[in-house]
Amino acid sequence: MSTRLEHEIFEQPQSLQRLLDAESAHVAQIAQAIRQAQPRYALIVARGTSDNAARYAQYTLGGLAGLFVGLATPSLTTIYDATPHFDGALVIGISQSGRSLEPAHVLERAHDRGAALTLSITNDAGSPLAEVADHHIALHAGEERSLAATKTYTAQLLAIAMLVGHLGEVPGWEALLQRVPEWVAQTLELNEATRAAAARYTFMEHCVTLARGFNYCTGFEIALKLKELTYVAAEAYSSADFHHGPKAIVDPGFPLIAIAPRGKALDTMTESINAFAERGADLAIISNVTALLERARLAMPVPADVPEWLSPIVGVLPGQLLAMGLSETKGIDVDAPRGLNKVTITE
Amino acid sequence: MSTRLEHEIFEQPQSLQRLLDAESAHVAQIAQAIRQAQPRYALIVARGTSDNAARYAQYTLGGLAGLFVGLATPSLTTIYDATPHFDGALVIGISQSGRSLEPAHVLERAHDRGAALTLSITNDAGSPLAEVADHHIALHAGEERSLAATKTYTAQLLAIAMLVGHLGEVPGWEALLQRVPEWVAQTLELNEATRAAAARYTFMEHCVTLARGFNYCTGFEIALKLKELTYVAAEAYSSADFHHGPKAIVDPGFPLIAIAPRGKALDTMTESINAFAERGADLAIISNVTALLERARLAMPVPADVPEWLSPIVGVLPGQLLAMGLSETKGIDVDAPRGLNKVTITE
Repeated sequence: MSTRLEHEIFEQPQSLQRLLDAESAHVAQIAQAIRQAQPRYALIVARGTSDNAARYAQYTLGGLAGLFVGLATPSLTTIYDATPHFDGALVIGISQSGRSLEPAHVLERAHDRGAALTLSITNDAGSPLAEVADHHIALHAGEERSLAATKTYTAQLLAIAMLVGHLGEVPGWEALLQRVPEWVAQTLELNEATRAAAARYTFMEHCVTLARGFNYCTGFEIALKLKELTYVAAEAYSSADFHHGPKAIVDPGFPLIAIAPRGKALDTMTESINAFAERGADLAIISNVTALLERARLAMPVPADVPEWLSPIVGVLPGQLLAMGLSETKGIDVDAPRGLNKVTITE
Repeated sequence: MSTRLEHEIFEQPQSLQRLLDAESAHVAQIAQAIRQAQPRYALIVARGTSDNAARYAQYTLGGLAGLFVGLATPSLTTIYDATPHFDGALVIGISQSGRSLEPAHVLERAHDRGAALTLSITNDAGSPLAEVADHHIALHAGEERSLAATKTYTAQLLAIAMLVGHLGEVPGWEALLQRVPEWVAQTLELNEATRAAAARYTFMEHCVTLARGFNYCTGFEIALKLKELTYVAAEAYSSADFHHGPKAIVDPGFPLIAIAPRGKALDTMTESINAFAERGADLAIISNVTALLERARLAMPVPADVPEWLSPIVGVLPGQLLAMGLSETKGIDVDAPRGLNKVTITE
């Protein structure tokens, strides 16, 4: 009795391979068009899971391609009818279905407001958002029938990583991207126990996810999956923001899920993990650092050789499995969780 | 036995008056310098409470002055040593103390990265952040001795509103700004009962704040005060994002705090409130709409004639009082809540 969710989670190595095969040449052309347009900055319009993909773009395009990325406030367009100037900007809309109204509304107005170029990333090449943009990257993830997005999220990240490769200066990036489907398959294998281990969280009411830098998005996306699929009040934090006050909520036994793979953010994440361990937090850790994994009540390994900038694509997978496992132990129908619609038409 | 927190909450009408008196002419000069620099967009570096002031700037500078505002990802500078290009940008650092390292680091590099102009907003004119910026707005809030920021937050919002007045096109904005201290005093009076009414939340473990548009910041700031002062796992949502999945966590009795004053976001907020009322949510409402207030388990009124763009300055006050009252009924020492340091030195 396999659910749509389960099927789609385990389909990710194949769906990501399809994206690489189908879009690599096309993304090269789009990257060329972006370079020619010389955007001053980028801004992204997205909601929900796609907003977490936007966070990935913020850190990777910013940190590896030098392009400042802001997240748009679409309600300025839809509620206040006051779209700001997008002077010289690359305006990107991201939506699984491409049928959310907000991104299409903002992209429609973008050239009038001075945008240099518009780009959309969706799983449906015939959607309004795909049609309204100058360029479109199709995700080739196949229809996503589960209400909670999984395979379209990792495909959004990979599409962004392909752009980052072209626009940035990461040595050997093309070969690294080709390894992503294999790393994803490995991560799913390494976390075979994660789904069942979710049982220990059956009565957890709230938790915090902690991440920093490139994986900031991973913390948000795992928190969102937990809320959507298990009704746990999960909140995502940058470890930096968490030290600005909210860490007061950490009691002995408070559940924290830390995403801390090898990379430049590892030192500061390790410091945070140590501080919360001292306060007696209940730690689940996603990492490829053995010493860290050994300290966790729930250790969720990712492959050792994934570079930090690509680690969000594998780092989210244990969270997807954890959320699925927790929904099972709580007796929730993951294919029809309450309150979720596949397409959310935000006015 | 009055606490520092109580003293500072009730001092806000005076501290805001001081800011208007001391900085109105200076902000006019800064606005003139900004117009001359013709920034393509703005980006703001801030953490914690100041990040919520940045959210206010995002919506008001974007919606009323046409200036796109992105929030910076300071860890690109501090962890990755990879500050993006800030080509033609107005780069703003906001910090209560001016001694957080991140905003100063980013502002220091801003001109090298192409920024058109830098501005800082702090409560300490002698702080590193004040000194590193081309222009500085001092908040004149007086020393903030409570660990949880209150009077410096409303002063940050008013400083931003003063800039918005000059850069935007709101008719009669100068007279409206002059009324802010009086509206703040009225709100504190209207919510005399809020502090004691907090008792009904004594055993609340988590809650969600809901807001949209100009008051998006208010939802975040109230959630932050609840976390800092009462250890409740409070999470802030845009009502739009909440409909993208997390609303699954709303059970009968789930505590929601909605910020819904009169204005363009009122219709969509009312729709959300209706939807959650149907699911049996326990509703606390901050509003100046009588019909809405009558539906709340806890009604927190704000003055009827505050325009929407200034409503965040008054809208946060009932939340401050609620957090203070809740800390009292829970027996927490608000002047020394666990885990809070006045200056957080984020690397």
